[in-house]
Amino acid sequence: MSEHESPRPLSVAVLGGGTVGSAVVRMLTEHAEELQARIGAPVEVTGVAVRDASKVREGIPSSLITTDAESLAASGADIVVELIGGIEQARSLILAAMAAGSSVVTANKALMAEDAATLYAAAADNGVDLSFEAAVAGAIPLIRPMRESLAGDRVTKVLGIVNGSTNYMLTKMDEEGVEYSDVFDEAMALGFLEADPTLDIGGHDAAAKAAILAQLAFHTSVTIEDVHCEGIASVTADDVRAAKDMGFVIKLLAVAERVDDGIIVRVHPTMLPRSHPLAAVRGSFNAVFVEAEAAGELMFYGRGAGGFPTASAVMGDLVTAARHRVTGGRGPGESIHGGLPVLDIGHARTRYYVNLDVADRPGVLASIAAAFAENGVSIQVVRQDGHGADAGLIVRTHMASDADLSRTVERLHELDTVREVLGVMRVEGEAGE
Amino acid sequence: MSEHESPRPLSVAVLGGGTVGSAVVRMLTEHAEELQARIGAPVEVTGVAVRDASKVREGIPSSLITTDAESLAASGADIVVELIGGIEQARSLILAAMAAGSSVVTANKALMAEDAATLYAAAADNGVDLSFEAAVAGAIPLIRPMRESLAGDRVTKVLGIVNGSTNYMLTKMDEEGVEYSDVFDEAMALGFLEADPTLDIGGHDAAAKAAILAQLAFHTSVTIEDVHCEGIASVTADDVRAAKDMGFVIKLLAVAERVDDGIIVRVHPTMLPRSHPLAAVRGSFNAVFVEAEAAGELMFYGRGAGGFPTASAVMGDLVTAARHRVTGGRGPGESIHGGLPVLDIGHARTRYYVNLDVADRPGVLASIAAAFAENGVSIQVVRQDGHGADAGLIVRTHMASDADLSRTVERLHELDTVREVLGVMRVEGEAGE
Repeated sequence: MSEHESPRPLSVAVLGGGTVGSAVVRMLTEHAEELQARIGAPVEVTGVAVRDASKVREGIPSSLITTDAESLAASGADIVVELIGGIEQARSLILAAMAAGSSVVTANKALMAEDAATLYAAAADNGVDLSFEAAVAGAIPLIRPMRESLAGDRVTKVLGIVNGSTNYMLTKMDEEGVEYSDVFDEAMALGFLEADPTLDIGGHDAAAKAAILAQLAFHTSVTIEDVHCEGIASVTADDVRAAKDMGFVIKLLAVAERVDDGIIVRVHPTMLPRSHPLAAVRGSFNAVFVEAEAAGELMFYGRGAGGFPTASAVMGDLVTAARHRVTGGRGPGESIHGGLPVLDIGHARTRYYVNLDVADRPGVLASIAAAFAENGVSIQVVRQDGHGADAGLIVRTHMASDADLSRTVERLHELDTVREVLGVMRVEGEAGE
Repeated sequence: MSEHESPRPLSVAVLGGGTVGSAVVRMLTEHAEELQARIGAPVEVTGVAVRDASKVREGIPSSLITTDAESLAASGADIVVELIGGIEQARSLILAAMAAGSSVVTANKALMAEDAATLYAAAADNGVDLSFEAAVAGAIPLIRPMRESLAGDRVTKVLGIVNGSTNYMLTKMDEEGVEYSDVFDEAMALGFLEADPTLDIGGHDAAAKAAILAQLAFHTSVTIEDVHCEGIASVTADDVRAAKDMGFVIKLLAVAERVDDGIIVRVHPTMLPRSHPLAAVRGSFNAVFVEAEAAGELMFYGRGAGGFPTASAVMGDLVTAARHRVTGGRGPGESIHGGLPVLDIGHARTRYYVNLDVADRPGVLASIAAAFAENGVSIQVVRQDGHGADAGLIVRTHMASDADLSRTVERLHELDTVREVLGVMRVEGEAGE
């Protein structure tokens, strides 16, 4: 730069001063020289909007702190980083920022899953960038590969472990054979679950991420309302043991798939063969497995949450948006040319695991097999365990539609040979029929 | 587009009509509508340069075929895709293309590992894009995440399985306990190795990729000459068995790491704990494990080779370069602001496995332990096996420098208690001391 006039510094306004916001400000300060080399101009933080100005925030000079998020968002900074979360306020701040000509980097999965269209439209109208790498799977570069690296390919299916808390809980159940209620209590005590734990355990956090992944995979408008969502509270130690015996592991998966006449997006506990790359993703790690026509099978693995991991993703977006300010150009906008219908869960086809408590008498298997056959569900494996009061039967099916399987389960409830339907779970990741 | 004037079609010239070139042309044709939606303009193939025009090439209309690569490269197409490989001709074609104002997408690892600087300089001089996602790990989005997603973070270490043929061979040795010579013969017979198999088994293919990964990870100029390279021909069934017994697996790793005063780039057979994410990468799959200061541990997994997987990576680069033609902007250029010295392998510090054939008499362990101690190498585990002519000793060390370990091995050769040094291998991926 010595021979040239110094380039204009780029301004960055940060909305939110929590762990991620603090980490972003620290990285902008501590890596200033490297960032300038990569961007072609220095970067300057012009303010950090917080709710409580009295709280000391490591790495954020108090002179930058403001409680007036509205004014900071609309200040016309080159880049506004939105880390407040939630829907209403975040949306209005982002729209104000874009109206003022700022490119926006956000980690807001809830907003991107509920109303991406409004944000994309505002970005296009104002000629600014909208990027959101941190919204799904934290530090893992995933949104950019989906939007750009796979832009010339066709994605057919996405399977993701995108909620670290539930993966931690399911890993613990798998490793220690304990009941759901025990790991739930421990996860709450350790602070691994959100204040409202239903966001995690009910699958709603994963569903928001599934909606975003489906948008990008299928170039189709998808919101969280389109996602079929089941949480992990129904997973029992018995299911985990049965899965283990069969060489499977239970994971809460976010699934987005292209089917003949549309797409299906779903979140639910799933049995995966232990040989599947996602089966080895343990503890609080996240991973997303992508199948594409030309690329084949891909997997992206890493930390899904945490201040610095999330900040790493924000910083990557920030550098790209900043480079666009210096060299021109824009990131990709909304891609909805796919325009595929989102189909009801009844159309989903998977294999199934069904765990039954049955009467111990001759003819039981025949009556149960008939219930499956009558509803068009073909049985792959049956295993009978125990006797008398402990008589149990585990059925694994071939590919069946969710609608057919649901009718089968209704019928099983009616049979007097079935004392109880103990567990029903989808199976993914096996070789095709 | 109906209300607007049709945008000018973008022209693409493809140099090379092999499996990747054919796949690229087919994808450009078959996905034309989607690509136009993503790019904002239609894309037109203006020619495919081949060596032998008489060969029938699936998916390439004969009217596009030319044997005059020079004229096609210099034709001023919006984008030139270089798939010819090798150094001299490819470099001169790429420089001619850039001089004519074309952005270049290349899969040429050899050239990027030998002379990236010349290509980057020409791209900057001519204001065009240079992208090369397909040069490392085929279909896996890796170059873009390294150049862009991690642009605000600091990478500390990269560990990659980047050669599918050798990973296939090592997986086979691990699963079946067979000798290297057997899997070599099989891999040759199956056509899994290059015509000159030393490129794969000698580690040179992996070394080229290691150089490219090191360039991007450390923002430093690195060429293949800087890479310490050892192949897999010395790996024995005995090493594989010993690794297995200790809970490890042997992989050919490309390693690029930041050390105190520089970087080290190396390719060699490595023992990894079976719990490491890379240990589960089997057969011909590739994966790259990245450690970054803020992001923590990341892994990228997928197909490292093959016509369509490689074409997927080329297409992603092509869409980005095409979008830049429509909306302005440029991809990142050469990033060498790190300017770190590349250190000699003697400075590398890892743990080691040493397998010795020893005399079966008292005092053997004492003399061997002394050889390690005298050279400053601390022993972590020793295991003695067998008796008499079969007496063996396996040593695993704590962290030691390559220089200290080499001196230790020299000393072991001199001891009359050591009949033979059967194997020496680096160990990666364990928890720090």
